[in-house]
Amino acid sequence: MIASNRARSGLDLPLSPLRFLARAAEVHPDKVAVVDGERILTYRAFAALASEFANALKARHIGPGDRIAFLTTNSLELLVAHYAVPLIGAVLVAINTRLSPAEVGYICDHSGAAILVSEADLLSRLLAETRLETVREIVVSPDASGQTVALDGAITMADFLTTGRSEDLPWEIDDEERVISINYTSGTTGRPKGVMYTHRGAYLAALGVVLHHGLTYETRYLWSLPMFHCNGWCKPWALAAVAATQYCLRAVRGPVMWDLIDKQGINCMAGAPTVVDTLVSASEAHGLAGPLTIICGGAPPSPAMIAKVAAIGGRISHIYGLTETYGPFAVGEAKPEWQALPIEEQATLLARQGVAMVTGDTIRVVRAFPDKSGSLVDVARDGTEIGEVVMRGNLVMKGYYQDDEATEIAFAGGWFRSGDLGVMQPDGYIKIMDRAKDVIISGGENISTIEIEHALSAHPDVVDVAVIGVPDEKWGERPIAILVVADIDVTDLGSRDAKSSELIDHLKRRIAGFKVPDRFEFTDALPKTATGKVRKNELRALHGDRKAAL
Amino acid sequence: MIASNRARSGLDLPLSPLRFLARAAEVHPDKVAVVDGERILTYRAFAALASEFANALKARHIGPGDRIAFLTTNSLELLVAHYAVPLIGAVLVAINTRLSPAEVGYICDHSGAAILVSEADLLSRLLAETRLETVREIVVSPDASGQTVALDGAITMADFLTTGRSEDLPWEIDDEERVISINYTSGTTGRPKGVMYTHRGAYLAALGVVLHHGLTYETRYLWSLPMFHCNGWCKPWALAAVAATQYCLRAVRGPVMWDLIDKQGINCMAGAPTVVDTLVSASEAHGLAGPLTIICGGAPPSPAMIAKVAAIGGRISHIYGLTETYGPFAVGEAKPEWQALPIEEQATLLARQGVAMVTGDTIRVVRAFPDKSGSLVDVARDGTEIGEVVMRGNLVMKGYYQDDEATEIAFAGGWFRSGDLGVMQPDGYIKIMDRAKDVIISGGENISTIEIEHALSAHPDVVDVAVIGVPDEKWGERPIAILVVADIDVTDLGSRDAKSSELIDHLKRRIAGFKVPDRFEFTDALPKTATGKVRKNELRALHGDRKAAL
Repeated sequence: MIASNRARSGLDLPLSPLRFLARAAEVHPDKVAVVDGERILTYRAFAALASEFANALKARHIGPGDRIAFLTTNSLELLVAHYAVPLIGAVLVAINTRLSPAEVGYICDHSGAAILVSEADLLSRLLAETRLETVREIVVSPDASGQTVALDGAITMADFLTTGRSEDLPWEIDDEERVISINYTSGTTGRPKGVMYTHRGAYLAALGVVLHHGLTYETRYLWSLPMFHCNGWCKPWALAAVAATQYCLRAVRGPVMWDLIDKQGINCMAGAPTVVDTLVSASEAHGLAGPLTIICGGAPPSPAMIAKVAAIGGRISHIYGLTETYGPFAVGEAKPEWQALPIEEQATLLARQGVAMVTGDTIRVVRAFPDKSGSLVDVARDGTEIGEVVMRGNLVMKGYYQDDEATEIAFAGGWFRSGDLGVMQPDGYIKIMDRAKDVIISGGENISTIEIEHALSAHPDVVDVAVIGVPDEKWGERPIAILVVADIDVTDLGSRDAKSSELIDHLKRRIAGFKVPDRFEFTDALPKTATGKVRKNELRALHGDRKAAL
Repeated sequence: MIASNRARSGLDLPLSPLRFLARAAEVHPDKVAVVDGERILTYRAFAALASEFANALKARHIGPGDRIAFLTTNSLELLVAHYAVPLIGAVLVAINTRLSPAEVGYICDHSGAAILVSEADLLSRLLAETRLETVREIVVSPDASGQTVALDGAITMADFLTTGRSEDLPWEIDDEERVISINYTSGTTGRPKGVMYTHRGAYLAALGVVLHHGLTYETRYLWSLPMFHCNGWCKPWALAAVAATQYCLRAVRGPVMWDLIDKQGINCMAGAPTVVDTLVSASEAHGLAGPLTIICGGAPPSPAMIAKVAAIGGRISHIYGLTETYGPFAVGEAKPEWQALPIEEQATLLARQGVAMVTGDTIRVVRAFPDKSGSLVDVARDGTEIGEVVMRGNLVMKGYYQDDEATEIAFAGGWFRSGDLGVMQPDGYIKIMDRAKDVIISGGENISTIEIEHALSAHPDVVDVAVIGVPDEKWGERPIAILVVADIDVTDLGSRDAKSSELIDHLKRRIAGFKVPDRFEFTDALPKTATGKVRKNELRALHGDRKAAL
């Protein structure tokens, strides 16, 4: 018998996405790697800049395990940081630019960031309102124009870069389980938690992204997804694995996106449904000249949105995951035979969260209570029984940074507990019904807010919608809908009543009567997180829901 | 600082290609996985058969680390074995069907195989001539027609399969460094050595194959490459990762290959140059209706062959590697800008061994002597200085089975020593000049036999060619060429002399004068290994070369 051996065998190298940039710079040095406005970097220059930045960090005695925080828009600098920081074994903490100064301050302090890189306008606001406990040096990164505004008490990126030696650093890591980045959860309920990604996980997540979205050397990727969101779903790494070209986008606006699609031949982009909506609803929107894959996640795209994208000649690749799963864990993998179905049916199938990515191992929907031996029990594969979505494998985080208790809770039963409620459909595809904290329990029945939202979205006048549960003496809870609707005078009661009746009629043709909301509220805009998720806790607070305190 | 931690983190799962089939059977149960003549298996059936076979092995107390030998043509059974054997942690030993009974016997004995699976005709010949020391049970596998001939002292595969329980076995492994297969080297110089592949290596090699050859769900792959050759370059695993369809091919013949291309829409196949030659030289050869990628390796395809394939509308994807590197380690990665070059120039660029695959880590060409610190020194990146090709990373074997001494020699200096001599071209692409044991040293100059062979292949009458070195009193060695040439009477001295003169003229326009062979020998066929490599040691023995004793 051959002995089992946990030691590394032969000449194995630890898995790390650092290898992707090393290879691209070696094999395709003259290929354009990054375009950020007027600034264009080849792979040779990209790798050289990463080395330069890493050396500047090293000159400050930043080393393995130290945290470097970034608070920047989708910039060249943040892409470079995805390689420069791990190049010396340090840990990247990319922070959501839309957080409040207090929240950013908490993340810097909690992660113990030694250095903070940010842009002048973001920094001015941050430093006016908060004091950072651990940050020793602040670096000002160029803004969208490529210019850097000097700031008191901070060094410009250009000056920072001149301070290192020009040492050749090895593009490899000593241990693939080393942490490469910490991504803080959006923290809609309580303090944000720091999700630790490893080099191994990032490597495998990136290869999964390449495989499932068909990324190649010919991919021209538009950064409509924030890079600070789960490290841009690991795409700064995935795109280098195939030596693709990445186009930075500082703000998600229709005109600039369409300009880049038309002039640069963008053929891949990503984002939450709100990003997709900005694209297809722009006045510039038109039929596409070439292929365009939109990787959509963060919230399920409605069938109506999938159909809209198909109508301009694009394709939605729907992914599902959480910060804790390196972003995408599952994919709504399309089957060729679906192409024979009517577009609405196709869209309904594609809107499902789907199946685990090939590098993502196992995803299940399980009952609330384990069996006698303590093992989790799968729900029936009937598309009806609701359970919690759980995952395991290499695309599940290492744990929460300095929060063993939360890690233990999240990994209860040996699986990562997503907190999402879903069903397992007969074909093995998962469909998320709701967040555990959003689901409405009415008269003992689970009501999926997502189901009602999708049904309302199918109405031509509905621009945006959120459904929440409100306390009800008889039923426990009842759904209400908060809507953004075109052509309505929200100050006029008659207009609101007429629209409500119309929507009730619309819904009754689509969902069970008990799921039809009791009330329709109209507004100009829904409160959303930086990643396009509706802040339902805010809506619940506004409407006096018992769950608001969660 | 975050502690480095070699233990598995969080909910990581060991990497194993077993996951690929588990996923394909779950997500695409009704997709056709394998076609072997009249026998067609969906992914559901493929996985079920693998389970059934694994259970039958388990019923015989076969367990982790035990070796199972296969001596079969490219069959459904051998594909199933790539999953069934590792499913219980056992080790697959797939043996070259063209080896002599004594050689097969040696491999069975050396690997300590407990069970041997083979086809009736191969078994009859084997058992008549050799006695197997460790094999406890012999299983007869169906032949190309799907029929199984009963054989004394052996059990048929059908009967074997009925003997297991129908237990659900977990599609995962406890340790990714566990050995999944042992592949014996061709052993042209001495006893074959058993190259150990791990689950981790096989997983990463398979993903590399998917990425570099663009395998997808739509791939219809023809098994023109023997599956016993480096586990079919890891493609039994790679194809399941994307749920592609595999077509078995029991013998490489032009008519059947063209029939499958035309009727089944084969769009990918692989093999040594001799396989490609069989395809393009077949009387059935014609322009292709759809795309066809031919993954070519084992020996470098000549630029003439690459051009021939392009002429029918196909594309050669040239790979380079050894049994010790899971088959493919490097790829002659094409760059879009090359498409503007004349076809001959493109072909010359593509005929190079190229660059490491993305999961293959580092490949170098190094000098014979390390520096003072003992580190290997790279040759100049000038396309001229010849050195040894060395590799490391996850696509290098774990070691030779029960041969620590040979392993140590192969890993000298911390790199795998390929024994191949090559140059590093200015663009970072490697070009193999020769096997270390084949290169000719003449008057202190290295002469590449491959370079002369390619120059001769460009002559329209040359069908096949091998160049070897023979002892020479003045120069040490001199090249001679052994050729298969069309339209020549090999028994006629005048005809031979005329052809020799013509070839000398042809060569003088292409290579340096001192590289032109001193002698041209004509023959009907060159002696070849089962994988299409010329047996140069045989040729050297025939021509009295000093290296024949090696």
